[in-house]
Amino acid sequence: MSIYYELLNQYRKIVILKTVEKTLRWDMDTKMPPKGVALRSEQLAFLKSLEHKMIIDPKIEYLLKKIYRKKNHDQMNNIQKRNVYLIKKMHLEKNSLPEKLVSMTEKQRVVTIDAWKKAKKAADFNLYKKQLKKMADLKCEAAEILMNVKEVKSPYDALIDIYEPGMTSYELTKIFSELKKGLVKILKKTMNSSTQPDISILKNKVPITVQKKISMIIAKYMRYDIESSRAGGRIDETEHPFTSGYYDDVRITTHYYPENFTSSIFSTLHEIGHAIYDQNLRRDWIYSPVGDFCSYGIHESQSRFAENIIGRSKEFWTFIYPKIKKMIKTGFSDISLDSFVLALNNISPSKIRIESDEVTYCLHIIIRFEIERDWICGKIDVEDIPEIWNDKYKDYLGVNIENDSEGVMQDVHWASGYQGYFPAYALGNIYCGQILSTIEKKIPEWKNEIAKGEVKNIVKWLINNIYKYGNLYDPPKLIKHATGQEIKVEYYLKYLNDKASQLYSFI
Amino acid sequence: MSIYYELLNQYRKIVILKTVEKTLRWDMDTKMPPKGVALRSEQLAFLKSLEHKMIIDPKIEYLLKKIYRKKNHDQMNNIQKRNVYLIKKMHLEKNSLPEKLVSMTEKQRVVTIDAWKKAKKAADFNLYKKQLKKMADLKCEAAEILMNVKEVKSPYDALIDIYEPGMTSYELTKIFSELKKGLVKILKKTMNSSTQPDISILKNKVPITVQKKISMIIAKYMRYDIESSRAGGRIDETEHPFTSGYYDDVRITTHYYPENFTSSIFSTLHEIGHAIYDQNLRRDWIYSPVGDFCSYGIHESQSRFAENIIGRSKEFWTFIYPKIKKMIKTGFSDISLDSFVLALNNISPSKIRIESDEVTYCLHIIIRFEIERDWICGKIDVEDIPEIWNDKYKDYLGVNIENDSEGVMQDVHWASGYQGYFPAYALGNIYCGQILSTIEKKIPEWKNEIAKGEVKNIVKWLINNIYKYGNLYDPPKLIKHATGQEIKVEYYLKYLNDKASQLYSFI
Repeated sequence: MSIYYELLNQYRKIVILKTVEKTLRWDMDTKMPPKGVALRSEQLAFLKSLEHKMIIDPKIEYLLKKIYRKKNHDQMNNIQKRNVYLIKKMHLEKNSLPEKLVSMTEKQRVVTIDAWKKAKKAADFNLYKKQLKKMADLKCEAAEILMNVKEVKSPYDALIDIYEPGMTSYELTKIFSELKKGLVKILKKTMNSSTQPDISILKNKVPITVQKKISMIIAKYMRYDIESSRAGGRIDETEHPFTSGYYDDVRITTHYYPENFTSSIFSTLHEIGHAIYDQNLRRDWIYSPVGDFCSYGIHESQSRFAENIIGRSKEFWTFIYPKIKKMIKTGFSDISLDSFVLALNNISPSKIRIESDEVTYCLHIIIRFEIERDWICGKIDVEDIPEIWNDKYKDYLGVNIENDSEGVMQDVHWASGYQGYFPAYALGNIYCGQILSTIEKKIPEWKNEIAKGEVKNIVKWLINNIYKYGNLYDPPKLIKHATGQEIKVEYYLKYLNDKASQLYSFI
Repeated sequence: MSIYYELLNQYRKIVILKTVEKTLRWDMDTKMPPKGVALRSEQLAFLKSLEHKMIIDPKIEYLLKKIYRKKNHDQMNNIQKRNVYLIKKMHLEKNSLPEKLVSMTEKQRVVTIDAWKKAKKAADFNLYKKQLKKMADLKCEAAEILMNVKEVKSPYDALIDIYEPGMTSYELTKIFSELKKGLVKILKKTMNSSTQPDISILKNKVPITVQKKISMIIAKYMRYDIESSRAGGRIDETEHPFTSGYYDDVRITTHYYPENFTSSIFSTLHEIGHAIYDQNLRRDWIYSPVGDFCSYGIHESQSRFAENIIGRSKEFWTFIYPKIKKMIKTGFSDISLDSFVLALNNISPSKIRIESDEVTYCLHIIIRFEIERDWICGKIDVEDIPEIWNDKYKDYLGVNIENDSEGVMQDVHWASGYQGYFPAYALGNIYCGQILSTIEKKIPEWKNEIAKGEVKNIVKWLINNIYKYGNLYDPPKLIKHATGQEIKVEYYLKYLNDKASQLYSFI
């Protein structure tokens, strides 16, 4: 057993090092003086290279070999076996990638992101495609290697597995095809409805000082502790909101726009959804592999649960809206709760993923998934992507993309080499619908509780059924364990259809 | 030469690692959620141990040996020789201390600081003395070892050398004896003067929002860039102000008290003095040993220059006072510039070092120095320190210490194991008087410039004569180089006497 603890101790140092990187990245995005960027790059490069060395350390291989001797492994319980498995996975994968490929990819990332920025500004895909191809080629090279190590069926599956272990391109194709059909149906019914929101009411000016107070109310509502002398969180400001941290030091950021005050509300809710997951991981598993979160999709399910299931419900606003009205004083006195909630749930096809509504959001993701899937296995070339993109947007969402800045160049993910990441966004929504259906059974009063400003029981359920399992299971197994069923699309579709039919008065 | 660059590259990594620690410590003191402290300790312990390993790395010894082969060393210029010397010094010293002693000292530090806190609160030295003795014993053990490596004459000299290389207990005894005599003389004349300030005017309430604006004015005045999109600094808030950073990322903190607004002004000035030193080190020496600051005493000379020479001058207030009066509106309209400046230069013996004035400050330091000197060589026991302390306070400052919380337990330095540090505070003042005497010759218009809000020429002189030399020389040599003379006490005494005689109308 002492070998096992020696292995865990090696891993513990890697986790601590990663949390240092997180703090430096948080600081870079929120507080660092602009000129500090050169030194910060040096720091991060140094820590990254150190982390790499620690992960591929032959000592880990040696300890793993000893542990996998049958007698040792048999003595371990499931948690211990999972820890060893996850360390082995990490070690083998990092070890399989040639150092040259890793460093070339890091360098290419910087170059491609730079090209992306310039091309996006100039609305000219041609300025970007060469560097995007280089980045994709490097990712494919890595994917080919990882495919064998991970023992999955295709290079693209290897990339998916980085973000959503146990998920495959085949499975996603099935899931997304059902999802797409359902979403398109709801979208049509909604668009055909004579009830339509007046979204101009959301543009009423709200001072940033008031918006900051609203953030505090939401933090308190969601039980995200940032104010007490024993707080474990913060809220800061960045253009692109994010969550960063580990256990007792988890920080979110949000943004404030005077003429779009709900943007900060939904950003804050979204990030708090992420944050309470990280803050409520199992304390006795800290620094070990099972003490990490499960997957990016599961993480996203928690942010979307807070943002949409809670944050876009009529019940949440029943509680919050009167408070906000009091604080804002002018501009909202004539606007009823129903009109306000309808405006927040405006469903309408759009070009930009991050501005899209709950119904069309996953269609944006499905388009990206379909392109990635064919791209990584070589079925399509980089230069054909804009046309394919625009055709799919016309086909699935009925929108005309007029330039690539609002089309294929809207996201930074591909430039960053995050091919394989997008599906996690849609899976997050699907998981969150399925989790909701279970919560509806376990906490029948959940809507009334939300309307009374009480999320205690819901958060408790999430802690006991999702958070406290950390990374003990891959996502499919965690979902099965939490909801009693395999991953199913129907619950998310039902949730969307129920809400839309109620708000837009259709059957 | 490639061996030299290999050595510098090893050192570069150590510097980068140290800057990571600085960022984490800054974050801990300013932004970290309180609960984050456990994880932060793990991070810092991990980085410290890594730093230690990197410094004692046998590869450094190997490279040093190669370089010190006569032929290689002879080829190097003075800068290169200094770099090699400083790396050798660091490596030998760290290598000479047994790992067990280092880790025991680290642990004892935590325990002693904890005992200090409790004893200070209870005003009971007995709760502290056992742990203080343990800490001092460990420091003595280290000092005995370092004495041989550093080739100095006593263990206490070895401790002084950590903070003020090239300075000795013998030299300090001489310098401080002259300083003490001079200070006591000025103090007596001041106290006997019929002109005395009304310090109650400094207690007028100033809103914190206004104080923050004043900080910005001072930052601009002192050319500490925190506002532009290319800024390299910040101002944040902590109870105990500090400066942290390296080159392009240097951050200061200050504190704001509504009923003591000049406290934030002098803290801000003091820390900016530190900050502009760090920000103006020679860019082409970054990451190398000579690219560091010279010593703690030299650093302190820069903070005291900004705080006192500039910040407590009538000329500075000629520029700033009208602006502040406008911002504050009420409370200061009847108070003349002269009364205000006199109040800022209130000279009066007190019990607490950090609250003391320019004349008595060094007497506080000299008391600590005399105790440390006799303590480290075993002439006095820990349990006798309070009595010795109180006797010296009565003798040098004429004040009665009634309990040890406002006596020997006021500072955390000894609990932290920083024996040998205090002299740097007094040296800083002495250096700064000597630097002033040179600036007076080189920039005869310096006072008029300050009164016009123009410190450009002064800062330029400091950059060209102090900052840009980084750590190329030990302090005595740097002072000689900058001022043309050995370290002399007379300039600081002259500066104090001139100012006091003017303000307090004595000859």
